[in-house]
Amino acid sequence: MSSPADRLARQMRFIVEADKLKEVFRQTLVTQSRRSENSAEHSWHFALMVITLAEHSNHRPLDVLRILKMVLIHDLVEIDAGDTFAYDVVNMADQHEREARAADRIFGLLPADQAAEFRALWDEFEAKQTPESRFAAACDRFHPMLLNCLTEGHAWRKHGVTQDKVLARNAHVADGSRTIWEYAVRMIDEAVGKGHLPPKP
Amino acid sequence: MSSPADRLARQMRFIVEADKLKEVFRQTLVTQSRRSENSAEHSWHFALMVITLAEHSNHRPLDVLRILKMVLIHDLVEIDAGDTFAYDVVNMADQHEREARAADRIFGLLPADQAAEFRALWDEFEAKQTPESRFAAACDRFHPMLLNCLTEGHAWRKHGVTQDKVLARNAHVADGSRTIWEYAVRMIDEAVGKGHLPPKP
Repeated sequence: MSSPADRLARQMRFIVEADKLKEVFRQTLVTQSRRSENSAEHSWHFALMVITLAEHSNHRPLDVLRILKMVLIHDLVEIDAGDTFAYDVVNMADQHEREARAADRIFGLLPADQAAEFRALWDEFEAKQTPESRFAAACDRFHPMLLNCLTEGHAWRKHGVTQDKVLARNAHVADGSRTIWEYAVRMIDEAVGKGHLPPKP
Repeated sequence: MSSPADRLARQMRFIVEADKLKEVFRQTLVTQSRRSENSAEHSWHFALMVITLAEHSNHRPLDVLRILKMVLIHDLVEIDAGDTFAYDVVNMADQHEREARAADRIFGLLPADQAAEFRALWDEFEAKQTPESRFAAACDRFHPMLLNCLTEGHAWRKHGVTQDKVLARNAHVADGSRTIWEYAVRMIDEAVGKGHLPPKP
């Protein structure tokens, strides 16, 4: 049996470790200074989207608390595994395996009951089979599309991503929210119209 | 009456505006590269602390979803009002007034029902009268103390803050969680012992 002091010490170790997520950078840019976004601030913005847009889920009612817990922990695995760009098919091949090892280590810092709870939330998020994880996945994919549209298609143009790839890669947004997907399709069309995203080559 | 498309457009405008919080910098440093932390990643780390440490609240059960909503929106006012350092008595004088004006503008981007909900959450957080807002305030104050201890007292030493001021300014952490406050007092003692925080002058 661990003492209450041990329990708190483990929780604090996890919180301190999590600080490293502020140094994991993504392909997207923030809208003002145009520096790379990190995964910690992405996680916050994503959570803010969830509480703002939850009414647009295909399935209601939703357990919004469970979604927020998933969102807050979903990218911690990147501390070990790094951020994998959504169109990087090479690194996506072993992404889940790398991230699952990271989940073992990072959630394993916590007391056993919390480690199990957070791991189950992460597994649920990854599997995208529940209404909560489908809505979370919709917002997670919508977020970088929104930032790309606000920064003249930076990450798309940098990596030669075309409209057909964006539509194919993100179509599962509709599994969580048809409303958000319809909005995204219009937004992507506008980006093509402005020359920020090349149409099919 | 606004149409569903108007409603979604207002929600998106709020989400886009929120991106600016990633460019509001605090006095604390992140632990790895030692750059200044921004208020968006602080909000994420703070929310992660809430779901990890909620069991240590003085009052239980807590409505953790309401706490998380407060945490996610609590610093948005800084987009207009800037971050006010916790020991800056000059700028603290009109801090609430500046932030309340910012709350009117920023939450006012949303549809009226959500603007009212988020404003009520922000007011609750500011007033610190409910178990949820007291626990949130405890984590909000504990977070920069933790980061300061992990970065050799950077913000304290930069601004000439002494142990007695840290203890006086943060004693209300105990109103939310006696356990977290006891942990903080030990952590502060250690910082003094290491020379990272000067004792009373």
